[in-house]
Amino acid sequence: MHIPVRIVLVTPTHPGNIGAAARAMKTMGLSDLALVAPKHFPSEEATARASGAGDVLDNAEVTATLPEAIGDCGYVVGASARLRGSKWPIVDPRTCAESIWRHLPDNRVALVMRPEHSGLSNDDLGRCRELVHIPTNPEFGSLNLAMAVQVLCYELRMCQLSSSVASGEDRGVPFASAAELEGFHEHLERVLAAAGFLHPVHQKQLRLKLRRLFQRARPDHNEINILRGIVAALDPARYTDGRGSA
Amino acid sequence: MHIPVRIVLVTPTHPGNIGAAARAMKTMGLSDLALVAPKHFPSEEATARASGAGDVLDNAEVTATLPEAIGDCGYVVGASARLRGSKWPIVDPRTCAESIWRHLPDNRVALVMRPEHSGLSNDDLGRCRELVHIPTNPEFGSLNLAMAVQVLCYELRMCQLSSSVASGEDRGVPFASAAELEGFHEHLERVLAAAGFLHPVHQKQLRLKLRRLFQRARPDHNEINILRGIVAALDPARYTDGRGSA
Repeated sequence: MHIPVRIVLVTPTHPGNIGAAARAMKTMGLSDLALVAPKHFPSEEATARASGAGDVLDNAEVTATLPEAIGDCGYVVGASARLRGSKWPIVDPRTCAESIWRHLPDNRVALVMRPEHSGLSNDDLGRCRELVHIPTNPEFGSLNLAMAVQVLCYELRMCQLSSSVASGEDRGVPFASAAELEGFHEHLERVLAAAGFLHPVHQKQLRLKLRRLFQRARPDHNEINILRGIVAALDPARYTDGRGSA
Repeated sequence: MHIPVRIVLVTPTHPGNIGAAARAMKTMGLSDLALVAPKHFPSEEATARASGAGDVLDNAEVTATLPEAIGDCGYVVGASARLRGSKWPIVDPRTCAESIWRHLPDNRVALVMRPEHSGLSNDDLGRCRELVHIPTNPEFGSLNLAMAVQVLCYELRMCQLSSSVASGEDRGVPFASAAELEGFHEHLERVLAAAGFLHPVHQKQLRLKLRRLFQRARPDHNEINILRGIVAALDPARYTDGRGSA
């Protein structure tokens, strides 16, 4: 009955929200919670609001950064409170749950959320396959973090109970983990910078576009190895004897 | 964009839950809140938790009894945290929202909820067309009242946004209001008691069965008039000169 999806709360500020999120998760059959740089944790308020879901808090993984929290995940979805002009694919919670469900057999899955007042950063975005947006009232979109967790976990539970959603990953091969993908991107960016193609500070949009492209491509483990081989083969350092490009 | 469904909270105890429920409603485009015998209302805590949804609280109708809160409603759904052995039809939130949506053009609709620790009483049940149950984790069903409001309102909003749910009531005639139906039942029970068929105190199950039957039948206004005519015609008082039955 357990739903093996990790809920990742990035820089949650209110301990009450963390507790309420844990309770929301457990009512829907989820238990894998990760907290990235929580302002206060553990806290009495979180435990009180968790009600009978204290075990979810006890087992929560606390990390300093998002990459650490999703490192072993092959499928990462970001929850976005805003429909920004981004070219990231944005789906509703039902479509998102069905998509997660299809990828569950072969991948660790994470659902990444930030408190509504901050929202996902571009760096967060670059680590997500797609975005899920809860279609709130256009005149009042102030959805509490724990409420958003409740709705998204509810859709996962409806998926679990429904026989209409076919299980099984599209390709039958797990995606590369977020850590593998991150390693590839760092490698690629280092090499592109060395080649004078990408300025690491001034060309953030270009970096983001590259990340979006590979999120769409969804490389698997072998493909990442191939890509890294290509990048290594094209590294200017190979030809300039480690002295960098001109 | 407004969804004209009334959320009725029966004897809510925690003001925080009332405020959180109002906020949950507004994020999904609902604004019609009724409170039956709230323990504390208005309250500062409710207003604080409502965040930007104070207007929903300001416009909330406060009544002493459930019949007052749903009197003008032709379609009443009860939210049940438990899958009791009742013979009431029980649907999931998605099916419930679709069903509400179909009945909206011709009926005022109410969704009735009690805090989870109490649950709907048999008297509440007797006033509901059907029950909606959020399919929680069998090992941890402790869903907070405001969270349940969020999930149910979310499904209504998904219905509103979906073109796949056909609108329009099955029969094209509004159902009798809850007050009309209640008036009929009180009349019927009085007459049955006078006839010695129904003991008003000791035969609660029989009363409930009758109410379930007429909830299934979904009489409209004209049919209620016909039924009341029948009951009046069969009233023993007519034959015993007002002195009651033997």
